[in-house]
Amino acid sequence: MAEPVVCTTVEQVREEIGARVGRGARSVGLLPTMGALHHGHLEIARRARAENDLTVVSVFVNPLQFGPGEDFESYPRQLEQDVALLAEVGVDLVFAPDAAQMYPDGTPVVTVTSGAAGTLLEGATRPGHFDGVLTVVNKLFTIVAPGPLTPFRAYFGEKDAQQLLLVQRMVRDFDHRVEIRPVPIVRSGQGLALSSRNQYLSEGQARHALVLHRTLSALAAGGLTLEQARRQVAAEPEVRLDYLVTVDPRTLGFVDPAPGALALVAAWVGPTRLIDNMRI
Amino acid sequence: MAEPVVCTTVEQVREEIGARVGRGARSVGLLPTMGALHHGHLEIARRARAENDLTVVSVFVNPLQFGPGEDFESYPRQLEQDVALLAEVGVDLVFAPDAAQMYPDGTPVVTVTSGAAGTLLEGATRPGHFDGVLTVVNKLFTIVAPGPLTPFRAYFGEKDAQQLLLVQRMVRDFDHRVEIRPVPIVRSGQGLALSSRNQYLSEGQARHALVLHRTLSALAAGGLTLEQARRQVAAEPEVRLDYLVTVDPRTLGFVDPAPGALALVAAWVGPTRLIDNMRI
Repeated sequence: MAEPVVCTTVEQVREEIGARVGRGARSVGLLPTMGALHHGHLEIARRARAENDLTVVSVFVNPLQFGPGEDFESYPRQLEQDVALLAEVGVDLVFAPDAAQMYPDGTPVVTVTSGAAGTLLEGATRPGHFDGVLTVVNKLFTIVAPGPLTPFRAYFGEKDAQQLLLVQRMVRDFDHRVEIRPVPIVRSGQGLALSSRNQYLSEGQARHALVLHRTLSALAAGGLTLEQARRQVAAEPEVRLDYLVTVDPRTLGFVDPAPGALALVAAWVGPTRLIDNMRI
Repeated sequence: MAEPVVCTTVEQVREEIGARVGRGARSVGLLPTMGALHHGHLEIARRARAENDLTVVSVFVNPLQFGPGEDFESYPRQLEQDVALLAEVGVDLVFAPDAAQMYPDGTPVVTVTSGAAGTLLEGATRPGHFDGVLTVVNKLFTIVAPGPLTPFRAYFGEKDAQQLLLVQRMVRDFDHRVEIRPVPIVRSGQGLALSSRNQYLSEGQARHALVLHRTLSALAAGGLTLEQARRQVAAEPEVRLDYLVTVDPRTLGFVDPAPGALALVAAWVGPTRLIDNMRI
């Protein structure tokens, strides 16, 4: 496979995309990431590669979506390794801007806001998180958009269920010309949902973290009530439950744990915050 | 001149633009309006027509930018007359959606926010106004954008100085591929800045409203201090001053009334709120 071309500026990535569309690329697939790529990302990149003529992966640790005291500084950064992994998958372009490129005036004046929907669940524990996510994703869509004649698809993992829903809302509310393609959660052999933050877990913590998948599975199979499921997570050593709820996957409104509902869980395992979800 | 094609849906206006760009239109000019077009709008439309192969005027009374108790219901709506005026100027497309087309789910979940800059001056008196303006202008840019290869310009009047500045910020912060072209204020023979809201003024009120231009001119000529200028506006019958300030036109930060500063005034004349401005 050819090495991907790494673009670090908005102008450069637009020129590369324009040139390749001009040379005949008939569709563009975008996978936005914060880097520290794992097998889950690569699964999505492989799918984007298979479904599009031109595949772009963005790698940007977006300061706007981290709150005070969160892991912005320590978030793993390993661009060289990421590019090597993406080369194996056959990704064409890597867009890896720095913060000065994405936010040339420091904090932007005009931003995207997710309103009340962004203050629930993840947003309740991480105020401003989704505004930061949508602000950068909105920019990425505008930067990468190949023009009206070229189909443009963006890939988002179902692990970040609330993020996926809000991105879909933004596309509709902002009339973005992009099709969102959700990608199922990729798990380790033992069931842990893959996440760049799993790097933070000790061996013992990684074992304790399996309670999330085990509990979601039991809940989905009807073997636990919601209350029992919460107690099971909370009882696991080193695990502190944030929320375990069942919601309507279209609206994130709370519903009973009946078939069709989506069970969402968030918990700290040691100092590391993990999320997971499963359809009932 | 040919009649403009009137499009009422997002799909329709995108198809029309796509078809005309496909047939060779090499640039697109957009003038966003709320209709009730006056001579000032037509001046801008004429300029957009002269500078672009394809000229689009949007006519949409955007509910999001009106506060409770403002004139959303009574705002003048006269699409047929607007289209006839735009035909004389040679505008190609009129995009005149209804609220259900622009906001199919009622109030949008994801919106644009102007942050602290949108809470000063006009924003202090009209909370949420600029968030509403930017939310609809963002949509219009995404809807009308002809693609990376076709220059795209949008025209905004300098009368709405704060709006112009925030739109320019949004373009930069969101990486919109559009060039903003500011257009100088158009005035009546006596100096009143043209506005659709001038329709609300009685003959007497229209005469009293001239104090705004008279005062800005004297201030710009160095014939009044800021305090004297404020007193002059406030002393005019039927006129209630909201603010008269001098700002840095690039940031809207308050500065002394020295050369290069921008004097901004807002006042109610009877029940009608008017704004005006002038370079010192």
